Amino acid sequence: MTRPLMINSFNPEAAENLDEEVQALLERRKKVLGPSYKLFYETPVHAASAEGVWIMDSKGKRHLDVYNNVPSVGHCNPKVIEAVSRQMAVLNTHTRYLNDVVLTYAERLLGHFPSELSNVMFTCTGSESSDLAMRIAKTHTGGSGIVVSENAYHGLTEQIARMSPSLGKGVPLWPNVRTVPAPDAYRIGKDQVGEVFAQSIRDAFADLERHGFAPAAFVADMIFSSDGIFSDPAGFLKPAAEAVRAAGALFIADEVQPGFGRTGVMWGFARHGIVPDLVLMGKPMGNGLPIGGVVARPELLSKFAENARYFNTFGGNPVCCAAALATLTVIEEDGLAQNAHKVGEYLKIGLGDITNGIDAAGDIRGAGLFVGLDFVKDPDTKEPHGELGLFVVNALRERNILISASGVEGNVLKIRPPLPFGIEHADIFLDAFRDVVRTPQFRKLAGC
Amino acid sequence: MTRPLMINSFNPEAAENLDEEVQALLERRKKVLGPSYKLFYETPVHAASAEGVWIMDSKGKRHLDVYNNVPSVGHCNPKVIEAVSRQMAVLNTHTRYLNDVVLTYAERLLGHFPSELSNVMFTCTGSESSDLAMRIAKTHTGGSGIVVSENAYHGLTEQIARMSPSLGKGVPLWPNVRTVPAPDAYRIGKDQVGEVFAQSIRDAFADLERHGFAPAAFVADMIFSSDGIFSDPAGFLKPAAEAVRAAGALFIADEVQPGFGRTGVMWGFARHGIVPDLVLMGKPMGNGLPIGGVVARPELLSKFAENARYFNTFGGNPVCCAAALATLTVIEEDGLAQNAHKVGEYLKIGLGDITNGIDAAGDIRGAGLFVGLDFVKDPDTKEPHGELGLFVVNALRERNILISASGVEGNVLKIRPPLPFGIEHADIFLDAFRDVVRTPQFRKLAGC
Repeated sequence: MTRPLMINSFNPEAAENLDEEVQALLERRKKVLGPSYKLFYETPVHAASAEGVWIMDSKGKRHLDVYNNVPSVGHCNPKVIEAVSRQMAVLNTHTRYLNDVVLTYAERLLGHFPSELSNVMFTCTGSESSDLAMRIAKTHTGGSGIVVSENAYHGLTEQIARMSPSLGKGVPLWPNVRTVPAPDAYRIGKDQVGEVFAQSIRDAFADLERHGFAPAAFVADMIFSSDGIFSDPAGFLKPAAEAVRAAGALFIADEVQPGFGRTGVMWGFARHGIVPDLVLMGKPMGNGLPIGGVVARPELLSKFAENARYFNTFGGNPVCCAAALATLTVIEEDGLAQNAHKVGEYLKIGLGDITNGIDAAGDIRGAGLFVGLDFVKDPDTKEPHGELGLFVVNALRERNILISASGVEGNVLKIRPPLPFGIEHADIFLDAFRDVVRTPQFRKLAGC
Repeated sequence: MTRPLMINSFNPEAAENLDEEVQALLERRKKVLGPSYKLFYETPVHAASAEGVWIMDSKGKRHLDVYNNVPSVGHCNPKVIEAVSRQMAVLNTHTRYLNDVVLTYAERLLGHFPSELSNVMFTCTGSESSDLAMRIAKTHTGGSGIVVSENAYHGLTEQIARMSPSLGKGVPLWPNVRTVPAPDAYRIGKDQVGEVFAQSIRDAFADLERHGFAPAAFVADMIFSSDGIFSDPAGFLKPAAEAVRAAGALFIADEVQPGFGRTGVMWGFARHGIVPDLVLMGKPMGNGLPIGGVVARPELLSKFAENARYFNTFGGNPVCCAAALATLTVIEEDGLAQNAHKVGEYLKIGLGDITNGIDAAGDIRGAGLFVGLDFVKDPDTKEPHGELGLFVVNALRERNILISASGVEGNVLKIRPPLPFGIEHADIFLDAFRDVVRTPQFRKLAGC
């Protein structure tokens, strides 16, 4: 079987068994949006409305959202709606006029960072943040050598897509990019993973230098979501950070996935006790309004500012900043990072109970509300079991639970709900998962 | 005098004469936003609120907006606010679930294009649109050679910044990029400009091939805004389009500036009687909410979709699509393209009357509500008079008119207001401009 371009993607050739309404929408999509647009699941979801951790389809059926990290403070959060509606009625311009909203948000945001990281530049998307950070890193270091993890995804601009190996062989990596194996403590071992990962990075920068590419940056998702979710042991990135600095490169923390409280603390890098040079933000920042950013040590920005002007038309606009300010306020006031920690631990215990004695459930890991369940064909070889992962994803979807999978093979169940996900929601998810685990199909695939 | 990185930028070293409130904001900006952020004008504007074609500062002073093209259907347009607030309360997800809003908008938008251009892909910004289009063009053609105009600006990603010569020498162009002189009918001559421009393009692609870069794309702003606003004679781009196709490259129309009715018709390319291969959209599309897109002939997308997955997290989200749909509806229902044509013609006549007999006012040109006044040091040599352009910009700002300048030297007054700009607003602008023209400083600089 050739691997599809996207894990958990709908196969358009299987459309004929779907209901008429869905088929009509598929037809319209094909006609106007073209071939690049993909849908999730064997049976696509027609989303009609949403609230909190629930997505309603066009038939009025409720789906528990265990997937979406963009509506981080909950779908249709009333405080975000109110902030956006209010700001839209007052002013929405750009940063070439003075305006308070962008400054207030910047100050509040930077208050959540170590003091060294005291400047922020605003973009509209995580991709723009990655792209800007790479321009800054190359200008500051004078090098171009980049090291990423083997199944990394950092964005969709040409520069960034070609340093995002998870996009597959159809998108060739730049000559100045090297990949390193993911820090998979389950397969490498908890005691070794930090040093093994650091050594891979040293080797990668050495190889880049051997080919004439001076080191510029190491970039990594601080929870390695597309690699398969690697969060522990906390602190394992310390030797990596030392290796990056020793090579003369910048350490860039991609917080588009783990940032804003998801892992139980505000930033993924904080769990590792490190301070990055640049931090990338995106997805959850404005609860669905397009806003991203790069936080930086100020001295890294000076040469870039001397060489180039950088103006992002929509970046830092008052409306998106108002959305982001409201989102940040809800995270703080509702203690959503603490909730993520509490419910995440509860989920891991629940998953452990349900899979007790099932060899195919190789590893349960993650931090806060970013939990992974790693399915394997054999607990000794730990060979990824992608088929089982995708079976569970689609079986849960039939039980009105929206979820997806991660890892190169899609073998890691990716549990990443909006942050107001409570114990009561975790129970609904765990009940459905228990039900799936008891099906003959699961037991057959899992070799029980 | 070395040219600053940005035309009409505030010089932070001149801050000490500004009032305390502005100084405090400047201090906050410097502390948190860092050195890349620039402001407009000798005296920056502190924007507090806005409505229609007016921006109010923090003292309650009203400024006529003759600059901003993003709030295309007017600042704080109530129909756009209503559409966004309503959609935010219902659903805001992504294109991996089925949803009607993105399809309805796509269908309505494509109804404004020639039938060949029947697919659209959504992004969040004009930069992302440019970046995506270049990936599509390179994949489809197999080439990488790119031709742009000599002071073009197409966006801020690394790929696109390095094919945007207006960013200056600090941002080196890629080896596979060539520039051609702008189609300046004022200096080249109306009868020759089309063929001269086409020949430059032929030469540029030939030079690229000579250096091993097979042709991929010619990209141009359909009103050449950063080059100095070149709109006429309508049709002058026909020989250019033929030259591009003859070279085997794609013709990419950048409609981020002229698109959505600004030039008196829906798209800038339509004035030239040509059909591009790809069309880039951004700025005015959602009246300030971040949305952009690429419209394409469908056959150009197939190889790209086979090679790569492309998913833009916020691209095509229901809230930004609702904003864009409301914006498009206002453009249609209020006849804003027709208004742009009418008021634009009125402005050109008014500017002609006021500058009658002033040699330094070399040329008045433009289409719809994108009008340029080209200041020259000498009507025979037509040498650009950047100092006069910037004097007028700042003198108008002192008269509560917000405007800027364009062209390599900043010699072209750039008149580009929100589209609901009426005859009554044109009169206010023309009165202020007349007042500036009568000042001794203007007359001295203009050599009257």
